[in-house]
Amino acid sequence: MFNSFGRIFRFTTWGESHGPALGVVVDGCPPGIALSEEDIQPWLDKRKPGQSRHTTQRREPDEVRILSGVFEGKTTGTPISMMIENVDQRSKDYGDIAEKYRPGHADYTYDAKYGFRDYRGGGRSSARETAARVAAGAVARKVIAGVGILGHVVEIGGDRAERFAAHELPNNDFWCADPEAAKRWEALLDSVRKSGSSVGAVVEVFASGVPAGWGSPLYAKLDSELAAAMMSINAVKGVEIGDGFAAARLRGEENADRMRPGNPPTFDTNHAGGVMGGISTGQDVLCRIALKPTSSILTPVETITRGGEAATVMTKGRHDPCVGIRAVPVAEAMMACVLADAFLMHRAQVG
Amino acid sequence: MFNSFGRIFRFTTWGESHGPALGVVVDGCPPGIALSEEDIQPWLDKRKPGQSRHTTQRREPDEVRILSGVFEGKTTGTPISMMIENVDQRSKDYGDIAEKYRPGHADYTYDAKYGFRDYRGGGRSSARETAARVAAGAVARKVIAGVGILGHVVEIGGDRAERFAAHELPNNDFWCADPEAAKRWEALLDSVRKSGSSVGAVVEVFASGVPAGWGSPLYAKLDSELAAAMMSINAVKGVEIGDGFAAARLRGEENADRMRPGNPPTFDTNHAGGVMGGISTGQDVLCRIALKPTSSILTPVETITRGGEAATVMTKGRHDPCVGIRAVPVAEAMMACVLADAFLMHRAQVG
Amino acid sequence: MFNSFGRIFRFTTWGESHGPALGVVVDGCPPGIALSEEDIQPWLDKRKPGQSRHTTQRREPDEVRILSGVFEGKTTGTPISMMIENVDQRSKDYGDIAEKYRPGHADYTYDAKYGFRDYRGGGRSSARETAARVAAGAVARKVIAGVGILGHVVEIGGDRAERFAAHELPNNDFWCADPEAAKRWEALLDSVRKSGSSVGAVVEVFASGVPAGWGSPLYAKLDSELAAAMMSINAVKGVEIGDGFAAARLRGEENADRMRPGNPPTFDTNHAGGVMGGISTGQDVLCRIALKPTSSILTPVETITRGGEAATVMTKGRHDPCVGIRAVPVAEAMMACVLADAFLMHRAQVG
Amino acid sequence: MFNSFGRIFRFTTWGESHGPALGVVVDGCPPGIALSEEDIQPWLDKRKPGQSRHTTQRREPDEVRILSGVFEGKTTGTPISMMIENVDQRSKDYGDIAEKYRPGHADYTYDAKYGFRDYRGGGRSSARETAARVAAGAVARKVIAGVGILGHVVEIGGDRAERFAAHELPNNDFWCADPEAAKRWEALLDSVRKSGSSVGAVVEVFASGVPAGWGSPLYAKLDSELAAAMMSINAVKGVEIGDGFAAARLRGEENADRMRPGNPPTFDTNHAGGVMGGISTGQDVLCRIALKPTSSILTPVETITRGGEAATVMTKGRHDPCVGIRAVPVAEAMMACVLADAFLMHRAQVG
Repeated sequence: MFNSFGRIFRFTTWGESHGPALGVVVDGCPPGIALSEEDIQPWLDKRKPGQSRHTTQRREPDEVRILSGVFEGKTTGTPISMMIENVDQRSKDYGDIAEKYRPGHADYTYDAKYGFRDYRGGGRSSARETAARVAAGAVARKVIAGVGILGHVVEIGGDRAERFAAHELPNNDFWCADPEAAKRWEALLDSVRKSGSSVGAVVEVFASGVPAGWGSPLYAKLDSELAAAMMSINAVKGVEIGDGFAAARLRGEENADRMRPGNPPTFDTNHAGGVMGGISTGQDVLCRIALKPTSSILTPVETITRGGEAATVMTKGRHDPCVGIRAVPVAEAMMACVLADAFLMHRAQVG
Repeated sequence: MFNSFGRIFRFTTWGESHGPALGVVVDGCPPGIALSEEDIQPWLDKRKPGQSRHTTQRREPDEVRILSGVFEGKTTGTPISMMIENVDQRSKDYGDIAEKYRPGHADYTYDAKYGFRDYRGGGRSSARETAARVAAGAVARKVIAGVGILGHVVEIGGDRAERFAAHELPNNDFWCADPEAAKRWEALLDSVRKSGSSVGAVVEVFASGVPAGWGSPLYAKLDSELAAAMMSINAVKGVEIGDGFAAARLRGEENADRMRPGNPPTFDTNHAGGVMGGISTGQDVLCRIALKPTSSILTPVETITRGGEAATVMTKGRHDPCVGIRAVPVAEAMMACVLADAFLMHRAQVG
Repeated sequence: MFNSFGRIFRFTTWGESHGPALGVVVDGCPPGIALSEEDIQPWLDKRKPGQSRHTTQRREPDEVRILSGVFEGKTTGTPISMMIENVDQRSKDYGDIAEKYRPGHADYTYDAKYGFRDYRGGGRSSARETAARVAAGAVARKVIAGVGILGHVVEIGGDRAERFAAHELPNNDFWCADPEAAKRWEALLDSVRKSGSSVGAVVEVFASGVPAGWGSPLYAKLDSELAAAMMSINAVKGVEIGDGFAAARLRGEENADRMRPGNPPTFDTNHAGGVMGGISTGQDVLCRIALKPTSSILTPVETITRGGEAATVMTKGRHDPCVGIRAVPVAEAMMACVLADAFLMHRAQVG
Repeated sequence: MFNSFGRIFRFTTWGESHGPALGVVVDGCPPGIALSEEDIQPWLDKRKPGQSRHTTQRREPDEVRILSGVFEGKTTGTPISMMIENVDQRSKDYGDIAEKYRPGHADYTYDAKYGFRDYRGGGRSSARETAARVAAGAVARKVIAGVGILGHVVEIGGDRAERFAAHELPNNDFWCADPEAAKRWEALLDSVRKSGSSVGAVVEVFASGVPAGWGSPLYAKLDSELAAAMMSINAVKGVEIGDGFAAARLRGEENADRMRPGNPPTFDTNHAGGVMGGISTGQDVLCRIALKPTSSILTPVETITRGGEAATVMTKGRHDPCVGIRAVPVAEAMMACVLADAFLMHRAQVG
């Protein structure tokens, strides 16, 4: 109930940042889909830490192993268990924060809830868990084979990308589709890193090829599921569908996506972000998320100890100065899972 | 699965805009809580249409009747069924749109999914369903009796309220805590209504008195549940927790909510909106939502018919020129339900 | 969570024996199915009390009203809310048992759990709730239109029916397919009723026309779901699939249902009761349930009061001397719901 | 949804008979419970194959490894992932049945559903999956530390044990509490094994120390959950609670468990098996299950091939001549899981 996501295409993740391994069990994947580690590894590689100086220097190969649910190269309809071993735990780095709550982290709240402190790098609240989501997302992509999902960073530290050139995405370390912005961000992140600070980001994800009709009103609405999925990603503080908050500043006639005859019908605009009444319209499904700046900074901040004493804490460890960057493949994976689930729900309801 | 919300405190709504009635079954409410229609009706009255010239003129008494789950004035731990009869359906108003899809509405997507058109005022996709949510929320409030929940409109048509004077809320038709903004909005809405247009809004809801520890990582995180709850409300296109999108523009040291000794500990700031790692911090839980302008406008817009022909449609009917206003009690109700559910989940996990 | 049954075809019941009404919300019913009260009422009439001297004399018309989810005679894919008003509550009958726990009833356990006594005829634990299940089952039957479901009583008070002549079912008051047994049971029940006692029964239900492939291993196995469904019916203490307990006395070669070529393949026997590995085989799905004798008897039995004092209690009220008889339509309904759910799950998984 | 069991204490199993490993993720376990592999291994050892000549000769050490959810020897409230490697797969044994459906097995139904044949020892439908349940059950036992759960075989091949001497359980290979029956069963099983046949069994499980009040009417009734849990175990065809089918032959006054003053109150008898109205009474919770004879027999039986041709099949492989024996620890584990879940649900509802 607590560590599972999805209704029919349903995955359950397990594992802590500094345990021996982490993993995911994907239940509800239809049978007969070609699947091997090669389908999953590329997405994990995309998320993998330590790929540029702009992300954490923890070195994890993040090699995935499929332990069940696939026979002779195809899914069998039974649970797909995938495991990734933790290799570079180095938990001594975290020693001096064992007794202090780091502001902005889940340290205090986990302790308040569960009565313990897994000081080894955040334990279950670490973004390392997102590797399991990416593995689940890779399976989801195979379930909705006709759908393309693409995420990119649209803003770092308040500096917005101005154009979208998809072919530029592999040419920089930021999943940035605007080469000029990428240059500016490089300088920005170098400066942020040197000053021991961190910055936030905005990430956009869209899915093309989603037919009209997916999404189940009222409480499994496509946009509602997307909002839950995205807000469950570490550091996310805001979610928008389509125009999002900007829609609140439009007039009704501006916001109306006019329809035109066609098979399927076309729309003049996509203010709605491809979802109307919780159901896909056939246009691109578009989602935007805001990520706060990393809480782990090399600047001392006031806090308290487990015993309730005033203290100052500074996170040494290895961290991402901007978690938004590595959130891109995670957000893509969550969108894939939501869509795979919506597809299977639709199939159940309508055949 | 599709029309239920919540995991332990779980409600299921039913009913269409123009059917004989609508209702909700609340399951999982603990026993022994004093409950009667008088606890529920005031919240419904707050949401009720036709209370000012700025909302739809449909006249519905929205009288709630408790049909089960209460015995001798107290909840019994069994399902609480509540029903509200539809009185003022007047479905002839909708006659001329039976064959045309209204841009911005769920008309097309419901038809694409289910293969039918309930042209009587949106059927199940109508905001009328939110009355059932408000009834469920009233029960939820009783479950978390120590928690106060308050919503207000912070922006209409791009015009922001500048101050928060809670005692001003009953003095205007907009759930607005800034009397100057309320005056400007009055003029704005009069003009919008006369021109047959509509505007969007931003609503803020916060809960005080939530202890630290509620929320279940990783996929029943308090903020993730809130995001799902809010995005499931009609016309909502964006959700923020705490600073939301603004957090993406802060540096790590600005965003860190510093902690101070105390019992419970205190925080210098609340950028996090009362949720860290998906678990409540003990601060106010704060959520903001963006609502698009009403799609039903008196301006003709291009669309297509069910048969796929080009057409022009104009919604006559009775509508809210700004759905954000009446969304306030609905957003409050959804927050109450999310918190009641988080409380019961917490009790299950930790005792 | 607590008062819902099913995963995709999911119903939620509400209501108490002596409240104003009871009902059910059916969620997940596919759109486009012809449905009206006329489809549901006959099944309710079959379960209705007071139809012979062998069942309770409470007079309830059990008239069902569809409040949502149907438009122009067809299901819309949205929740179907159905309500039945209680007419003949006569709760004064129960007055003298308000303070005493009736042995064999849920009086004590409800009080131990919830801390209250709804002494008005069992409250939520009353078999009256099963009317709501029958209504849900009537909808389920429409979802799996090609499947026929038939229940009958095979044993009353230890006296077994010896033959199965389906056409005899309407000719007696016991859903008995053996006219000789029916005669014996008539005498038996008259004597039981006169002596203020009660007897148990065994009911068999089977479904024909279920294709091979329904049922979802491992924890939504068709037989596992059936067992849960049947054991949730009041007074049921045992469930068997196929040969059930008798299978434990067979040798492997006796129990093996040999297969023969055909399209679909045929089986020489059906020891398995149409389910293998949790999945339907294409044969009749067969289930048998044991119902204990009614606990409400006109014989005084030792018990205790709410205050913990020794006491003697005798249930006056109006009761079924053999609850097994009226359980037939309920068991049929539960099987219909399980099969409809299995069908929709199968469609989700396999398309 | 399909491979998970439980609502709050919820486990998800994965793995096939002949894959690299199998495992389980237990979600919802409360924090702060001492847990290590030593708490789990003894129960797995109890279920382990190859411990006497009366069970399959497959040699599996069934060594469990905890991969997450435990920190410094205590549960953390996060998912507990446990893995068991398969060692002795020897899948060549199964080669000649790759194309034939074995009567009584899930071969045909899995193929009918999923369109493939995992001929390697039954794949997911193999009883090997039950090792994962036993691991989950070991965790569940820790959650309900005051409850004792004991299972034993009461009947093999139609021969019933006549007395219950718990201390005899470790003295034979059959979890039999009657030493005379154990002797007879030894001879019976030797003869059955030699003749290449198999026999069924009846297993009884009871839980002592369950307080009154656990179980959630109406669709998470304790007995309904137990029925689902037990019927989901391989080869189970019948489930009884308390007197079960025998209750159908009692009169109301015989079946009534009379209550006596006390704290808690006592009952003269326990016909109900410790559950009334779906809620525990405080007496022993008692459940009995019927297991069919193993389908894998050394006797040739008629069947068909995947291609639909008539054929004869004989299972060579290594099998249990009586699966009922090794079902004892599995049934215990399932009862433990149901009770742990009921306990947590109760805590959620009532506090």
